[in-house]
Amino acid sequence: MPAAHDSAFDLPRVVIQRISPELDGGRHPVKRVVGREVAVGVDILKDGHDVVAARLCHRVKGERKWATTPLEFVFDDERWMGRFTPERVGRHQFRVEAWPDPFATWCGELKKRIDAGQDVKSELLEGAAIVRARLAHAAGASTVRLADAHRTLAHDEESLEARIEVALSPQLLELMAGPWDETTVTRSELREIVVDPELAEFSTWYELFPRSQTDDPARHGTFADVEARLPQLAALGFDVLYLPPIHPIGQSKRKGRNNSPSCEPGDVGSPWAIGSAEGGHDAVHPQLGSLADFEKLVRSARALGIEVALDFALQCSPDHPWVKRHPEWFFVRPDGTLRYAENPPKKYEDIYPLNFWCTDRAGLWTACRDLLLFWIARGVTIFRVDNPHTKPFAFWEWCIAEVKARHPEVILLAEAFTRPKRMQALAKLGFTQSYTYFTWKNTSEELRAYVSELAHGEMAEYYRPNFFANTPDILHEYLQRGGPAAFRVRLVLAATLSPTYGIYSGYEQCENVPLREGSEEYLHSEKYEIKPRLREPAGVLEPEIARLNRIRREHPALQRLDNVTFLYTEYPGILAYLKRAQQGDLIVTVNTDPHSAHDTLVDVPLELLGIGETEPFAVRDLLTGERYVWQGRHAYVRLDPRERVAHVLRVERA
Amino acid sequence: MPAAHDSAFDLPRVVIQRISPELDGGRHPVKRVVGREVAVGVDILKDGHDVVAARLCHRVKGERKWATTPLEFVFDDERWMGRFTPERVGRHQFRVEAWPDPFATWCGELKKRIDAGQDVKSELLEGAAIVRARLAHAAGASTVRLADAHRTLAHDEESLEARIEVALSPQLLELMAGPWDETTVTRSELREIVVDPELAEFSTWYELFPRSQTDDPARHGTFADVEARLPQLAALGFDVLYLPPIHPIGQSKRKGRNNSPSCEPGDVGSPWAIGSAEGGHDAVHPQLGSLADFEKLVRSARALGIEVALDFALQCSPDHPWVKRHPEWFFVRPDGTLRYAENPPKKYEDIYPLNFWCTDRAGLWTACRDLLLFWIARGVTIFRVDNPHTKPFAFWEWCIAEVKARHPEVILLAEAFTRPKRMQALAKLGFTQSYTYFTWKNTSEELRAYVSELAHGEMAEYYRPNFFANTPDILHEYLQRGGPAAFRVRLVLAATLSPTYGIYSGYEQCENVPLREGSEEYLHSEKYEIKPRLREPAGVLEPEIARLNRIRREHPALQRLDNVTFLYTEYPGILAYLKRAQQGDLIVTVNTDPHSAHDTLVDVPLELLGIGETEPFAVRDLLTGERYVWQGRHAYVRLDPRERVAHVLRVERA
Repeated sequence: MPAAHDSAFDLPRVVIQRISPELDGGRHPVKRVVGREVAVGVDILKDGHDVVAARLCHRVKGERKWATTPLEFVFDDERWMGRFTPERVGRHQFRVEAWPDPFATWCGELKKRIDAGQDVKSELLEGAAIVRARLAHAAGASTVRLADAHRTLAHDEESLEARIEVALSPQLLELMAGPWDETTVTRSELREIVVDPELAEFSTWYELFPRSQTDDPARHGTFADVEARLPQLAALGFDVLYLPPIHPIGQSKRKGRNNSPSCEPGDVGSPWAIGSAEGGHDAVHPQLGSLADFEKLVRSARALGIEVALDFALQCSPDHPWVKRHPEWFFVRPDGTLRYAENPPKKYEDIYPLNFWCTDRAGLWTACRDLLLFWIARGVTIFRVDNPHTKPFAFWEWCIAEVKARHPEVILLAEAFTRPKRMQALAKLGFTQSYTYFTWKNTSEELRAYVSELAHGEMAEYYRPNFFANTPDILHEYLQRGGPAAFRVRLVLAATLSPTYGIYSGYEQCENVPLREGSEEYLHSEKYEIKPRLREPAGVLEPEIARLNRIRREHPALQRLDNVTFLYTEYPGILAYLKRAQQGDLIVTVNTDPHSAHDTLVDVPLELLGIGETEPFAVRDLLTGERYVWQGRHAYVRLDPRERVAHVLRVERA
Repeated sequence: MPAAHDSAFDLPRVVIQRISPELDGGRHPVKRVVGREVAVGVDILKDGHDVVAARLCHRVKGERKWATTPLEFVFDDERWMGRFTPERVGRHQFRVEAWPDPFATWCGELKKRIDAGQDVKSELLEGAAIVRARLAHAAGASTVRLADAHRTLAHDEESLEARIEVALSPQLLELMAGPWDETTVTRSELREIVVDPELAEFSTWYELFPRSQTDDPARHGTFADVEARLPQLAALGFDVLYLPPIHPIGQSKRKGRNNSPSCEPGDVGSPWAIGSAEGGHDAVHPQLGSLADFEKLVRSARALGIEVALDFALQCSPDHPWVKRHPEWFFVRPDGTLRYAENPPKKYEDIYPLNFWCTDRAGLWTACRDLLLFWIARGVTIFRVDNPHTKPFAFWEWCIAEVKARHPEVILLAEAFTRPKRMQALAKLGFTQSYTYFTWKNTSEELRAYVSELAHGEMAEYYRPNFFANTPDILHEYLQRGGPAAFRVRLVLAATLSPTYGIYSGYEQCENVPLREGSEEYLHSEKYEIKPRLREPAGVLEPEIARLNRIRREHPALQRLDNVTFLYTEYPGILAYLKRAQQGDLIVTVNTDPHSAHDTLVDVPLELLGIGETEPFAVRDLLTGERYVWQGRHAYVRLDPRERVAHVLRVERA
């Protein structure tokens, strides 16, 4: 048998396990926002009876020095908790350090021996030896004080009382704290946290087609037209303005109006058929203006508190410069032509997909990353990524890491409407926000279940929902058939259930005509034609939008996802939920039936609100200013969609 | 910006996640037994619409070659399942491989195009290109057949029908299967499984003190006396005979009878105070016989189907040879003396703990490991490890890995009665079996909750309970006060709830006198004196023990833990459970009140049994041979402890 080699025995003194937050055993980071406290939990196990001490170490990734904060034993089953608040955007790391604490162990035992009336002379000498060992690692002022303590403990002729007093003094305990012998410290694996700007969690989106910002279908809207709309959007309370692709649009196989496979002269084509002789993903469509115009738009928006979000759609029209310059980045058919997009038997001949596993993938992936860097250099910090689930997961993980290492403030919204685990995987590997199934969750039961999963399940650690109430691709039957009340219902739900939500223009007009019966596409969709938005009257929902967005800004309860508690209602079609915050609790009730009035008793969670059984209290409807006095566990609510679809109630003392 | 280097883009084509079984993200292996199928589940995610193929690879750790078995897509949320059966004891590894399957993708799309009436000439050429690519990796007979298929697909002048027939033929699909392009294969991380002998899961233990195998308290029992008892123990159905430490016992500070701090002349001391001038952990107590006698005992036992289990108690009496030879392995006090065991204010002066973090820990740990190897060389394959939770977790992980790498068949039972996570941690890091809280779970509710946690919680993956009904340290109040019926109840519960259980001698005599009121220690405990067992009459419970152990051997339903389903009983004090097995289902009902008769209706799980609502069926009580005809969802059971405490019913067809 070979003799065991010493280094094999430098093994951990304690077991550190089940760190939280943690995702997939540390494979993926969890997400947080800057300035929000991170609570860390961990099991620390040590054999025998020794006292263990532990601390939480954290830093911005790439820094050398760790900040430390104490970990505290919280309950009997070996669980410790600590907290820290990341002060900067970027990737953070944390780990746990734990070590046997010989001095604290000795103190605890000394007390028990004294209580049992045992002779502790020998123990005091042991304590002195521990202090001496600590002295070898001491520096500065503590050296003198430790040496004093050592002298007293070791001094046979001092009175026992004096020695015990020093031994058990809080001063000595403090001097002896901390891991002073490196070899006894056990360190956990590193865990990472993506710390995003606040806007990643709490944001209000508006989507518009720049070319539609015109009062004449024959005149192509421009960046300047968009700029002119900014004050109105700011007044409505939006802080992200998302633009579909702004790049040159291909001519070949251009789609006609209403997604017709052939286009007529003058048809403007789909902005997602990116690239023409005028340039590709790093160019702007000449009819929108110049790159300088775009940069001006970005600056003007920011001055009003609005960030411009761009679409990032990695596909090319047949006229895209890459097609000629890099045919090797596409799929080549046996006859030498490039393959257009297909989902057989459906064909999308106006776009070519990229072959992310082509031989020159280094070139292609780098070029894709550089597109993001190009627009970031022009002031864009938010990207809505088109169909990320049709590009490799590995590509996104690489690309987002590359970008966020340089620009940690960047926000990427994943527009993946696909099976749950694929959407989750994209969020885990780096997307900041994600589209959701919200548009298809229209009953109380569906909303309760879905929001509970998002807010209270594992997804809460990494999946930030963006509740769009409509999109250019999704006009749900609920909106088609429910009239303005349906739009009101979905607006209140989006704005109060999710800290991030959005609408696509036309929503404020209650636009509800589908391409055809059974379709979720709009008739005369802006995807294929100019819709002269400036000719439209003021949107009927605008006052409500402005009010809701102001309420959102004023109430921290609406600025996070995890503080929602659904309340029992006798009539299930009225959805009720509490949104809690230190600064004030809100209760929202929404009639999900846009056609009929309903009433119900709502269970009021008095314990959570800290209100007594018989204590009257007031709730104020932030939408109307009305004030109601409630008392007891049941509140009566009646919502008639002809008058109102919801209450957003601030709980006040009577 | 530096140009991206190619190798950075050799990234996984698919995401492989959430492999099961898996413990703590792969940090610890799960446990299985040889010959029992292992079911593996995994999520496999791929972007886009490509067909994915996957397989499960497994091998004994250390082997170079992998065995493979298919993984199959089981349900819609990206989940795949596969199975393999480890044929050898030892540590096994498995991993998952997945790859995009271009040919299957192409076939699926071809069918859709044909169904849509599209022209597929160009697609057939694409298919031909895929077959040609495969050809480059082909060998043997398949080369010719692939070349034929390629010729047909690529041959413009063949009829379209003939080409399509070849394209979609199952023969070609089979030839094209498998990952033929290494660069497209994604491999999961390795996961490990400890595969133990069947005895690790299903075993029946008997514990006795060899020195008590005598009919005269003045005559020290010997290995030969133990050997003489083997036929009886085999007839009772035991297959593990566990002996407390058999080593020389220290003289210094030897404990007297009933744990008295001072001993009288002739007192034999505690076998756990290991070591004297006659030797340490690798010696046998001379009064028991010689090492050769012990080896003979081991051989005789094995011939009767019994394994001898030794105690592994890492502590030393003050007279242990290590104390002189290796004082550096102990804790030294300031006055130069060694520190005895203490849990202040309690003192255990007859033993010295080892200092596992001493400077020469390489020497100490290696010496401890070598003790196990020493006894393994003498035929011992099972060790009951004393108080492992007072030695470092790191030591056990190292030591068990060292031993099992050489002797994978070895079984180690952890005797840790401590907080749950510490017991769990020991099981995770290598102990084969573990003691449990069973002795303290005496009500139906406690038993249901505890067994459900063990059988159906995460612990089922790694924690093998050994349900001892009593031990030399634990005589529960339930047994002290419940009379023989209490012993019968606990025997049936232990033997039918857990595939591994044990009793300590005296149980069959219904020995129930505690050291004093409120103590779980035995009066005149064998830990401190010789109890002349051979003078006792045959144990009153022996017939029941023999019958239960025979039933256990004959019924696979009692040989695993995970097949238990608790049944609702109207009277909760009667515990009822189904134990399922292909070879026959059992229903056990136990009256947990040893004092009074009770009756109840038991919910019969007809669906699980495959029996119709109105179909009569028989149950046979394996304890008595009685047969009852039951019908419907409710069965009446009455259990009077004066007659019987339980039914063990085999479900039979009427």
